[in-house]
Amino acid sequence: MGSGGKPALADEIPDIVIGRLPIYLRALTNLSQEPDKTTTSSHELGQRLGISSAQIRKDLSHFGEFGKQGTGYNINYLSDKLRQILHLEQEWSVILIGAGNIGHALASYQGFAHRGFAIQWIFDNDPDKIGQEINRLTVQDVADLSKTIQKESIKVAILAVPASTAQSLANQLVQAGIASILSYAPINLKVPEGVQVRYNDPAIQMQRMAFYLEP
Amino acid sequence: MGSGGKPALADEIPDIVIGRLPIYLRALTNLSQEPDKTTTSSHELGQRLGISSAQIRKDLSHFGEFGKQGTGYNINYLSDKLRQILHLEQEWSVILIGAGNIGHALASYQGFAHRGFAIQWIFDNDPDKIGQEINRLTVQDVADLSKTIQKESIKVAILAVPASTAQSLANQLVQAGIASILSYAPINLKVPEGVQVRYNDPAIQMQRMAFYLEP
Repeated sequence: MGSGGKPALADEIPDIVIGRLPIYLRALTNLSQEPDKTTTSSHELGQRLGISSAQIRKDLSHFGEFGKQGTGYNINYLSDKLRQILHLEQEWSVILIGAGNIGHALASYQGFAHRGFAIQWIFDNDPDKIGQEINRLTVQDVADLSKTIQKESIKVAILAVPASTAQSLANQLVQAGIASILSYAPINLKVPEGVQVRYNDPAIQMQRMAFYLEP
Repeated sequence: MGSGGKPALADEIPDIVIGRLPIYLRALTNLSQEPDKTTTSSHELGQRLGISSAQIRKDLSHFGEFGKQGTGYNINYLSDKLRQILHLEQEWSVILIGAGNIGHALASYQGFAHRGFAIQWIFDNDPDKIGQEINRLTVQDVADLSKTIQKESIKVAILAVPASTAQSLANQLVQAGIASILSYAPINLKVPEGVQVRYNDPAIQMQRMAFYLEP
């Protein structure tokens, strides 16, 4: 639903399983920060996440055997394995397009640190914003976008622009070599097979929950 | 995965189906803004969203018969029906906790307008932030949080606070009557059956896509 095509090699593992791995990784990171905590179990993880322990074991079994019967999972070992599976052992340089309110919040966001991503460039088309400093980065002219992506071999972009310009910018990103886009624009983007897109639209999340409210 | 329990009445319709309805509604809204566009089809919607037309018809059939063989869906009629199903005919008053960078971006976010939600109150515990104006709202003292929720019968909250305080604030929200929480804190919250929680963590979305990148 939220993503484009995937490369052939990944075809055997359902994307919904991949989608749960980062959630396991986040829970493991939180667990590892508790004093004297070095191991966990699918039961404990499941309790924390509201996911059944059978589901967690099944998800992980796609990738190998990570725990021992009776002793459970070593938290650091399983975290390392998940980071390896998700290609988070390296830090991906990220390009951010849009220096508005959302762009500002993202550029200052602490949640990317040690999680595989670092915003390294910010672009905008507004002459008043170009040259501004946000969290030690200088906002660049969007006219230089493609050149920078190609020169720096950037693969990951965040699109924090209005709906009206999102598709043409997405086309430009893909053309220049971007393979993974997180979009904050409230439209569905058309991208070629092999390019991943996910959407961050808080109104969509809230509308989904409103179904369960009594009007 | 991302949600707590649901009320008994909604049990027959899978939450994954509910999760697609806001996406259909957003696509219909975008379509309705195109000149001379009054009808659409499951085929056209599917093309725009990367979802099969059969899936769209199946999802909608849970709620009734909305289109006519051959002529498709009237865009305004189907939009109204989806808004009715999702309880978006009224505007839900929303309480925002946290006046940091994300809180600022949310308070100024244009994407809630005409989509069923309006942030009406902002709370923080930082004396430097209390009293500040953000987009015509004055930041209130979090000490008054429960009182306001109860007095105004608020059901929907957005939690834009650090992980360390998220669970205790969530407990307080639920205690005061909140039934639907969108959380930006990078931890899973424990909430009682019947309370909905969804998470907005851009790093999780990006980690999921990194699986498909070549390291």
